[in-house]
Amino acid sequence: MAEQIFTYQQVYDFTNNVFQKMGCSVEHANTATKALLSADVRGIDSHGVARLSGYVRLWEVKRVNATPNIKVIHETPSTAVVDGDSGLGLVIAPFAMQIAIEKAKQVGTGWVSVQNSNHFGIAAHHAMMALQYDMMGIAMTNASPLVAPTFSIDKMLGTNPICVAAPAGEEPAFVADLATTTAANGKLEILQRKNLQTPDGWVQDKDGNPSNDPHALKTGGALLPLGGDRDHGSHKGYALGAVVDIFSALLSGANYAPWVPPFPAYVPMPAQQPGKGIGHFLGAMRVDAFRPANEFKKSMDHWIQGFRNAKTAPGQEKVLVPGDPEREYEAERMKNGIPLLDVVVQDLKKLGEKFEINF
Amino acid sequence: MAEQIFTYQQVYDFTNNVFQKMGCSVEHANTATKALLSADVRGIDSHGVARLSGYVRLWEVKRVNATPNIKVIHETPSTAVVDGDSGLGLVIAPFAMQIAIEKAKQVGTGWVSVQNSNHFGIAAHHAMMALQYDMMGIAMTNASPLVAPTFSIDKMLGTNPICVAAPAGEEPAFVADLATTTAANGKLEILQRKNLQTPDGWVQDKDGNPSNDPHALKTGGALLPLGGDRDHGSHKGYALGAVVDIFSALLSGANYAPWVPPFPAYVPMPAQQPGKGIGHFLGAMRVDAFRPANEFKKSMDHWIQGFRNAKTAPGQEKVLVPGDPEREYEAERMKNGIPLLDVVVQDLKKLGEKFEINF
Repeated sequence: MAEQIFTYQQVYDFTNNVFQKMGCSVEHANTATKALLSADVRGIDSHGVARLSGYVRLWEVKRVNATPNIKVIHETPSTAVVDGDSGLGLVIAPFAMQIAIEKAKQVGTGWVSVQNSNHFGIAAHHAMMALQYDMMGIAMTNASPLVAPTFSIDKMLGTNPICVAAPAGEEPAFVADLATTTAANGKLEILQRKNLQTPDGWVQDKDGNPSNDPHALKTGGALLPLGGDRDHGSHKGYALGAVVDIFSALLSGANYAPWVPPFPAYVPMPAQQPGKGIGHFLGAMRVDAFRPANEFKKSMDHWIQGFRNAKTAPGQEKVLVPGDPEREYEAERMKNGIPLLDVVVQDLKKLGEKFEINF
Repeated sequence: MAEQIFTYQQVYDFTNNVFQKMGCSVEHANTATKALLSADVRGIDSHGVARLSGYVRLWEVKRVNATPNIKVIHETPSTAVVDGDSGLGLVIAPFAMQIAIEKAKQVGTGWVSVQNSNHFGIAAHHAMMALQYDMMGIAMTNASPLVAPTFSIDKMLGTNPICVAAPAGEEPAFVADLATTTAANGKLEILQRKNLQTPDGWVQDKDGNPSNDPHALKTGGALLPLGGDRDHGSHKGYALGAVVDIFSALLSGANYAPWVPPFPAYVPMPAQQPGKGIGHFLGAMRVDAFRPANEFKKSMDHWIQGFRNAKTAPGQEKVLVPGDPEREYEAERMKNGIPLLDVVVQDLKKLGEKFEINF
């Protein structure tokens, strides 16, 4: 697949312009752009600027409101529920995370469930907002149903990711960001392009049989929960995806389970709408609400070094700490630029023509 | 394997007597017995009364303190750290959970990290304490190192379970309780007794190669994180186990990673002790800190019914909701009694002789 390299600033300026042309305020456009591009920078190419035209299409069909009145509709000292007013999740999630952080400053922890939102990009971007305050950050979101629970043919859950970020001292922060499926959709797309089969446990076909077809989703199949099948613990991946749905949507009043709105604007909305929009859950815990921050961070350094120094299995170079691969991408791409597939570049150029912006 | 049936009351009275003979107060013995036997009742036979003699041996080598002074050593409105004074985790975890619940009553949520504890039985018992208050309950614990992270030969983490319990209305509560490994040790023991191989992705051998030997742990091998290997998402199971370790031990000052004390009293303590005892993390969230409890519970009913009514894959009878199998065990065993393997019965009879209690 041919690709071209762009500097972060090039992609940033273009994306920011697109959001402003949609009618976003300068502040919202900045926030959304940073959130969206954090995926490209961290090597999660499926969730970054490649989705920009998808967000625009949602705005065109009036499922994304570019000028939302995002507000707190309920709160206690340590909790809040935010109504995102159908805005971009890329703007709403940072708003909600900032509330979680402010509450953590006051009472030790803050927990915010969000309704009436849209896709928020990568969870890590929001969870990592807490790190600068010596807080742990937590971010989750539900998503449209692509995943069949154990023993099910019906797709009942999204890839429902969880991120937990924890500050360290001399070492870089611990950042675990994972879809609760064996593999996320982006990995299937890579295999599709290479014309390769999927490993066992990634997908099933439309009848609920195990499959190795990377196109299985397009023919009525489903992604499988982390674990793949019952013998390999898929009931655990299913349970984790369910927990994300409950935190994100049942606590906030968003849509849940198979009724979460789809990301592609051309896919019809579910007939039933038990809630509003899609749901997120953001949390912040002040480390020193438990223990002096310097002690915690010293222990984190010791923890991280222990894992880095673990003896490797045959053929493996090193044991990684969650967050390592993404941080390596970030260092490399901020220096050398962001590679975009030609198909993505063409898509962005078309978007540029629509809005009269050069790319 | 031959087994005998005992009523809950028979097992309860014997266990309670043993804890009192160890020197536990009547109150602590009651609390510990309920926590321990909740495993037998819910069908988690590996974590129940079969472990009673193991707890006694830890007391005999002075690693369990029967008369602990359990206390809060740090707190904020929504958080606390508890020092368990080397007591039974079966007593300390309910103490900590009650604090989480009281804080949730005051400020919406409560989060308690615990140091200087021992094994706490099953996570679900503690998390479910929150349900009666219309709260969600969260419970985690770290455990002695049996699990090799992705790409590692060294065992760096325990099976580190997570439980999340959420109340429903007409439906029974949602209770997800899962070790962050593909399979827990108890499942290996079942295969050992039956002389069967393990499925792929459960264990590796002492050199870090994939293995199907249910005895792999005894010959220097390791359990594998949920996912099994990198292609099947083991880095996600590893990250989740790491998160449990950080919440339970790094926030509290307990031992972490490979330095968590072992459960078997005959296994020497790790040379290095970066913290105190083992660590837990307990949380409670008042549902109405987010949304009126009756609305939440109505949505939970709808959610649960949606999953129960999902179309099943070939050969499957029904789609289960997390907590279903354990609840079915509970109904059956409270009515018909608890089956104990002969080997467990013999072990308990020997314990009875030691303490002059009939079993």
